Amino acid sequence: MDFKKMLFDDGVKPYLLKAHYGIEKESQRVDLSGNLAKTDHPKSIVMADDHPYIQRDFSETQMELVTPVAETLRELFNYLAAIHDVAYRSMDKNEMLWPLSMPPQLPEKEQEIVIAKLKNAQNVQYRQSLANSYGRRKQMICGIHFNFEFGPELIHALFNLQSEIKDYRQFKNEVYLKVTRNYLHHRWFITYLFGASPSSEENFFEEESLNKAVRSIRCSKYGYVNPDDVQVSYSSLEDYIASLSSMVQKGILSEEKEFYSPVRLRSGCHDSSDLEANGILYIELRNIDLNPFETYGIGYEQAEFLHLFLIYLLWKDEGENCDEWVNTGDFYNNLVALEHPLEPTQFETEARNIIDEMEQLAEIMDLPTSNTLFIHLREMLNDPSKTLAGRLYKESEKSSQREVATSIATENYQKAWEQPYQLSGFTDMELSTQILMFDAIQQGIRLEILDRQDQFLKLQLNDHIEYVKNGNMTSKDSYVSTLIMENKTVTKKILQQHGFRVPKGEEFQTIEHALRSYDLFSAKSFVVKPKTTNYGLGISIFKEGANLEDYQKAITLAFNEDSSILIEEFIKGTEYRFFVLNDRVYAVLLRIPANVEGDGKQTIEELVIQKNRDPLRGRNHRTPLESMQLGELENLMLKGQSYHKDSIPAKGEIVYLRENSNISTGGDSIDVTDQIPDDYKKIAVDAVSALGVKICGIDLIIENTEVPAANQNAYGIIEANFNPSMYMHIYPYKGESRRLTMHVLHYLFPEVQNQESIN
Amino acid sequence: MDFKKMLFDDGVKPYLLKAHYGIEKESQRVDLSGNLAKTDHPKSIVMADDHPYIQRDFSETQMELVTPVAETLRELFNYLAAIHDVAYRSMDKNEMLWPLSMPPQLPEKEQEIVIAKLKNAQNVQYRQSLANSYGRRKQMICGIHFNFEFGPELIHALFNLQSEIKDYRQFKNEVYLKVTRNYLHHRWFITYLFGASPSSEENFFEEESLNKAVRSIRCSKYGYVNPDDVQVSYSSLEDYIASLSSMVQKGILSEEKEFYSPVRLRSGCHDSSDLEANGILYIELRNIDLNPFETYGIGYEQAEFLHLFLIYLLWKDEGENCDEWVNTGDFYNNLVALEHPLEPTQFETEARNIIDEMEQLAEIMDLPTSNTLFIHLREMLNDPSKTLAGRLYKESEKSSQREVATSIATENYQKAWEQPYQLSGFTDMELSTQILMFDAIQQGIRLEILDRQDQFLKLQLNDHIEYVKNGNMTSKDSYVSTLIMENKTVTKKILQQHGFRVPKGEEFQTIEHALRSYDLFSAKSFVVKPKTTNYGLGISIFKEGANLEDYQKAITLAFNEDSSILIEEFIKGTEYRFFVLNDRVYAVLLRIPANVEGDGKQTIEELVIQKNRDPLRGRNHRTPLESMQLGELENLMLKGQSYHKDSIPAKGEIVYLRENSNISTGGDSIDVTDQIPDDYKKIAVDAVSALGVKICGIDLIIENTEVPAANQNAYGIIEANFNPSMYMHIYPYKGESRRLTMHVLHYLFPEVQNQESIN
Repeated sequence: MDFKKMLFDDGVKPYLLKAHYGIEKESQRVDLSGNLAKTDHPKSIVMADDHPYIQRDFSETQMELVTPVAETLRELFNYLAAIHDVAYRSMDKNEMLWPLSMPPQLPEKEQEIVIAKLKNAQNVQYRQSLANSYGRRKQMICGIHFNFEFGPELIHALFNLQSEIKDYRQFKNEVYLKVTRNYLHHRWFITYLFGASPSSEENFFEEESLNKAVRSIRCSKYGYVNPDDVQVSYSSLEDYIASLSSMVQKGILSEEKEFYSPVRLRSGCHDSSDLEANGILYIELRNIDLNPFETYGIGYEQAEFLHLFLIYLLWKDEGENCDEWVNTGDFYNNLVALEHPLEPTQFETEARNIIDEMEQLAEIMDLPTSNTLFIHLREMLNDPSKTLAGRLYKESEKSSQREVATSIATENYQKAWEQPYQLSGFTDMELSTQILMFDAIQQGIRLEILDRQDQFLKLQLNDHIEYVKNGNMTSKDSYVSTLIMENKTVTKKILQQHGFRVPKGEEFQTIEHALRSYDLFSAKSFVVKPKTTNYGLGISIFKEGANLEDYQKAITLAFNEDSSILIEEFIKGTEYRFFVLNDRVYAVLLRIPANVEGDGKQTIEELVIQKNRDPLRGRNHRTPLESMQLGELENLMLKGQSYHKDSIPAKGEIVYLRENSNISTGGDSIDVTDQIPDDYKKIAVDAVSALGVKICGIDLIIENTEVPAANQNAYGIIEANFNPSMYMHIYPYKGESRRLTMHVLHYLFPEVQNQESIN
Repeated sequence: MDFKKMLFDDGVKPYLLKAHYGIEKESQRVDLSGNLAKTDHPKSIVMADDHPYIQRDFSETQMELVTPVAETLRELFNYLAAIHDVAYRSMDKNEMLWPLSMPPQLPEKEQEIVIAKLKNAQNVQYRQSLANSYGRRKQMICGIHFNFEFGPELIHALFNLQSEIKDYRQFKNEVYLKVTRNYLHHRWFITYLFGASPSSEENFFEEESLNKAVRSIRCSKYGYVNPDDVQVSYSSLEDYIASLSSMVQKGILSEEKEFYSPVRLRSGCHDSSDLEANGILYIELRNIDLNPFETYGIGYEQAEFLHLFLIYLLWKDEGENCDEWVNTGDFYNNLVALEHPLEPTQFETEARNIIDEMEQLAEIMDLPTSNTLFIHLREMLNDPSKTLAGRLYKESEKSSQREVATSIATENYQKAWEQPYQLSGFTDMELSTQILMFDAIQQGIRLEILDRQDQFLKLQLNDHIEYVKNGNMTSKDSYVSTLIMENKTVTKKILQQHGFRVPKGEEFQTIEHALRSYDLFSAKSFVVKPKTTNYGLGISIFKEGANLEDYQKAITLAFNEDSSILIEEFIKGTEYRFFVLNDRVYAVLLRIPANVEGDGKQTIEELVIQKNRDPLRGRNHRTPLESMQLGELENLMLKGQSYHKDSIPAKGEIVYLRENSNISTGGDSIDVTDQIPDDYKKIAVDAVSALGVKICGIDLIIENTEVPAANQNAYGIIEANFNPSMYMHIYPYKGESRRLTMHVLHYLFPEVQNQESIN
């Protein structure tokens, strides 16, 4: 099979970089001083042995973060970042993740290493048998597993270029087997570049068996390897399966999954019979140490290198004797793994040759790679202190590896908690959607982004699929009920027919008709507004009636914005937003205009700057609250109160900067859920139910919440919103946080809660 | 109570014309020659004794059309027109409605007049007893009942101006009682103006008891009146109820509803105990003859007059002795009813006085009335041949009353059938909504228009309410499923994940990314389009691949329309629209471009004119098909075929005027529901189900319908529409009509069908 020629074919070119990726990353939980955590796996993460994102590996402290399959590296790292955020913020606030492959200091007594408390008894038993065979200490090593599948289009294109193998599946197996054998042969190069376990912490080795620094304990014979008598052939898939199953039959391995090859052939299932039937779907690279210098244990450029390296290995000729080729690789790798981290490798020439060939290949194939990739590779080759092991070793010389690791972990921990309302990797999406995605990951609900710009998610738990847009547009609401809410006249009519108080008023299509109704409104408090309002444009409020001239002006203004206008009674009181979900009020919010509270010392401007320092405040809806401004409108408002920005308000005095209470203009959000009497909550629930809606933000004007809702004119319903903001309830300026996204998830997937309550 | 003063108060003025109206109108069904129909009530109208719009009165042939309560006269007449359309088009095509109050020629034998075949035995028994008491012939008289309620705001405003009566309900009763007494006293004026039953047809009188023409047989003592010993007092509500119940107790009346007063006091229920408890809600004027010169039996100006007359009667002083005042009215009315239609009335002076006073009142109160109202009233007073009875009598002199009535009926009949896809009164609404409203009226589903411009309906059957927008946006579809359909990328992803064939392709947000993917598409058939398409703008199709320059141009064009574009495989074949409702295909439509078929004689222009004569074709979506044009595009298309508009195509030759098949540019719609194989219908149903949708128009491209759908690439799914046009399936150019609106109704209200099948 002349892959060298085939890979340069024009028909193959468009698909060369198409691939699917996945990462599994283990880390030990430690306390803020870097000691192994003594706590159980976090309770806020749904306890499921098969949690799709956050699992436990061997021990209870060994968190395994699993990305979904991604179609680009960008997507892969987005998920990796997001899952890290969830892991961090689900743990005890006194815990963080150890950034090294080698575990932190272990207990003196091996039995104190706690095996993962999984539900499934078989899973626990398997770990028990590993503990018996290899010792618990060795099982505490962590690493990265990098799952890689060539794009099916690429393999199809290659398949069509040859006639030697007629069967597509067999051809695909050959592709992966060649890459795997070459990977096993050349993997010393990975160990040189990315090996990052130069020394161990206390109590890893029972007796000190390695008394010098190396490139990678983990990838060496001291790491996590099978006994020497485990020998598996990669000459063909049949041989691989046969030799593996013979190891199990002979009792040399307890199960197939105990085979700790640096590359595992994967069918998508855990059974090799499935591998036989379906062929190799992808390969799992298991020899990657945690990269302590990357927040998520592996860098983007590193992953890019791995992809390019795998293409290179498909292109590169291999040795004639398969098994020998692989065995030589094992031997070379162990040599390199045990080299001193600051010494050049004994395979420098071969390494240089690989880099040159890879670079040529990338050029000929016209593959877009990071500008710095080959520069960095050569730097690492020329100067071993630039390799990961080299860097870690040098850093550790200044203090200790433990201190370096603890300080890195602390940095990552702080980063994860800095903006808790954001989900790393997805910060361009709407806040409410980010928070919902956070919760979905935590609850073990599979997440797929169908359209990122459009905030369109697919959520899945077992066979149950739900689609969600903007965090709260779901299958639970009917189409027509959202159309009802979109149309103010219709909303009002329906609420009125159900006996709720809404502002009385009329809709007009012409100026003439509206003028003719002057007498109906002239002496009352009323509002003139376009039927479809847009940021408050075209709205006039007359709190004490209006003369004909002002009435006419207001009408003209409103008709400038829409072909229909509404003239409505103005209802006096305070506006509250009720968030109703499935016939229950989960949150009530009061929004008040942008303001500062004087301290008798600072100017208004200083007070604004101070209040804006709150990490909840920012710009452009990237934060739950917006920064207050001191622009034209605010200055006018101050002037009206005989203030300017340099005035110093008295201690305790509230100075308002705005008339409107929108969060988007710096307003404060105050949770008042527990303060609002139940009878008003019932009004909100009943009104939403009358509209046939399940998820709704409904705005009530209440003059005095101490007056019973049943009193005449105690309240008025202003609007019902089918896409109510959730984040403002979750991160209010004052008051309790209401995790509405979690309620939405539990509404969509009640089985999650049931599952939890069973535990 | 000084109503004269109170009615002129400024606080009352804005509400003077606020009112609620309703009309009940009876007519006899006749065949096209004017003979009483021998058929049963139409089967297409849901058979329910309490059908809200179309009932039977005394006899099986006596159709009673009932409008819902309307808040304006315009709305009232819209409903009246619509219900007439439904009545006409539900009847046997050989039947029409007799336009006179006096019935058409009756059978010689009274027993041949068929009593309405109602379901409820009590209803039938009541009619049987009427037949016994009054004879069947008299029960065949028809008329208009005009229901009228003063706006509650008006009565409230009046109530607040006085202190004499403390109880609001009692005050309201007084208002209606005064109006009623005055109406009864002055109703001779109505009889003069609008009496319209000058003579009877054969077999109405058993023996000829009236041998001269009069103004109104119906309103005279020869009409439908109670025996003389029925005496009811209107002095107070208590007296009214007491005297009425005494008549029933004495057996003079069989039931309260047998009291045939020209004005009935109504509580909203049929029971006078309810009247006692709730007071008078509205009054029912029952002395209005059918106006043969108006399509719907009563004219707009006539109704306007009645409203004004009722305000006038509230204003006008009444006689001191209530009962005498009413009895005098009966006496006067009979005198006027029996006057010759062409003679002046003996109450000319009094009539002139009423007109003058009404006109003054309208001026002082600043009430907007038709410009012609008072002109017409004076004309009718000055010239009796301008009254309805006068006109009918004069017309009949030329031939016979029967012939005049038959010819009027024929005209109304033709009008009702002229544009069967339209619903009179609502022709400004979307066609599909008009047709759905037609079906709702026919099925006895209560209809309320919540927003006319927005095509927003409320449908109600008993306690079951459904809201519908645009005829097919309902509670049955979830919000998120319509959002899925709105987003092409998401639709495609979901369909693909469920194993359906959709055009392969990618979405791009930047020109650079799109250019980088040139290799993926360059050699294939593909389409470049903006993500959100709008009338086909920005779409480029490359059927045989494209060079880089054209590719770049197409991308730029698409990005001009949207910030995201799609580049997709182009799927060859014919596009079919499948209409799927609740997991079943109800219609499949083929749309073909505007075209004419040659006859070897006419020019293309002549053929276009001829084809455009089809009443299904028109402009601006007011008709199911659009007129073909011969504009720039069409002429270009002809030129491409070496034709011009004066060319004469050979017999049978099809000449296309357009490339696109849109109905909106004159395309033909062809129903192919029965021709499409089931396996393709299953694809459509399964795809729609995968999207979680209940009402959907899904577009499949099929190259050859004879190839099984399971074959590779047999079909491709292009789009799923959440607001699919229904009218094009209901009125196709060729092929069977598919009444989708009825299927939608039965889907929303399955109980209608169950109800029918029980019958």
